[in-house]
Amino acid sequence: MNELKMSHRYLLKIAYDGTRFSGWQVQPKKQTIQGELEQLITKMMSADFIRIEASGRTDTGVHARIQVAHVDLPRKIDPVYFLNGLNAQLPGDIRVKFIKKVSNRFHARFDAKGKEYRYLIDNSKILSPSLRKYRFHEHRKLNVLQMQNAANFLVGHHDFASFSSMRCFANEDTVRDLTDLVVIRRGSQIVIQAKANGFLYKMVRSIAGYLIEVGLGRFDSNGTKEILDRKKRKADVKTAQPQGLFLWNVFY
Amino acid sequence: MNELKMSHRYLLKIAYDGTRFSGWQVQPKKQTIQGELEQLITKMMSADFIRIEASGRTDTGVHARIQVAHVDLPRKIDPVYFLNGLNAQLPGDIRVKFIKKVSNRFHARFDAKGKEYRYLIDNSKILSPSLRKYRFHEHRKLNVLQMQNAANFLVGHHDFASFSSMRCFANEDTVRDLTDLVVIRRGSQIVIQAKANGFLYKMVRSIAGYLIEVGLGRFDSNGTKEILDRKKRKADVKTAQPQGLFLWNVFY
Repeated sequence: MNELKMSHRYLLKIAYDGTRFSGWQVQPKKQTIQGELEQLITKMMSADFIRIEASGRTDTGVHARIQVAHVDLPRKIDPVYFLNGLNAQLPGDIRVKFIKKVSNRFHARFDAKGKEYRYLIDNSKILSPSLRKYRFHEHRKLNVLQMQNAANFLVGHHDFASFSSMRCFANEDTVRDLTDLVVIRRGSQIVIQAKANGFLYKMVRSIAGYLIEVGLGRFDSNGTKEILDRKKRKADVKTAQPQGLFLWNVFY
Repeated sequence: MNELKMSHRYLLKIAYDGTRFSGWQVQPKKQTIQGELEQLITKMMSADFIRIEASGRTDTGVHARIQVAHVDLPRKIDPVYFLNGLNAQLPGDIRVKFIKKVSNRFHARFDAKGKEYRYLIDNSKILSPSLRKYRFHEHRKLNVLQMQNAANFLVGHHDFASFSSMRCFANEDTVRDLTDLVVIRRGSQIVIQAKANGFLYKMVRSIAGYLIEVGLGRFDSNGTKEILDRKKRKADVKTAQPQGLFLWNVFY
């Protein structure tokens, strides 16, 4: 007779500075955010192994303002006690911002209806030292109006194969709903805000890399539809550096 | 007969992230901002030794948005070429923001008429990882009105012995003109802005430490004049952590 195994599912909102990590996902012999959390939660619960499942991976050097994940614990625990216990032992570059108990049917990845990413650009002549790990720096003045014009062609239900990584498989569905793509300048700071029902691998950084080139005048913003329509990644779409990218929010 | 030695003086505005440095001033076997700059400028000029003189020191872990310094070079050099050459070789946590040629009578320290420091506080429940090296974190809500009321007692021409380090010598002049002391909240961020004709050792961090205690309700803001008048540092004035402090500007 099998023992009845009860488990209790918790939702966590996690912020991290991705600088020193090889991304979210556990990899052998590498520092990852998932790895740090699993190790600590497993220890706290005196369990054999506890898995933490996020809304999706983030790449090496990419940050999160809010990443959402869930864990199954072998016993009930007070969310505030759980949160304080984690933050007391986690390194300062990972913070748990919120925890609540959820139904065992909730799934951080499968239930995510959409995500927001922000790509932050410092467009001043010389990058401030305290921003260097959290901004892409471009010292030449970017034309934000041209960037927004290009962005407008990308908003909507499209095949984004031109704006994803070469690593995508041929049979993968590359159609996504990009509901928002806004380029805002505040002084020397430029923010690219992207919301979609989901993002392809390196999609935000590919869009950011392309928009930066448009902002530098290297491409005509009106050529954007053509690039989208060819449904093929080419060398004119570059992947922008990871340190400007923040996973900003996950929607359920 | 002595050779006539010409020298050419340059003013530099320097920004730095103080996290990994033992402050501005050169010390044997320690990483300092002055040390990094002197080593590099000496090498660039193929000189025996070139000294860089700042408006004043900053402590271990303290940042600068603008520190002003001067150097004497053995030959004339184009300021833009000098600036680009320095930034190309300096580590990312030190940036030279501006260089111009000045009169040999200009002195970065003796000619400084005043300085502005800002002490940055994150007053949110959980500190964002990307701010952890650039903010003091206090999760309990600070009463900014009480902090400003206390600050108002400190503005003016006073003996600031109560708000300086124990290390001050008895015969040192501890009178300063604090022209501005403003406490501003923007959402969860609190900024303490301090301007004076000069600051005593650890004066801004002592004032910040005291104002934080007032904001927590541990001291009555109306008792500030009494603390100032006793002209003696006591345990009720704590030195706030260095990572919240930025040298913001130097006035000439």
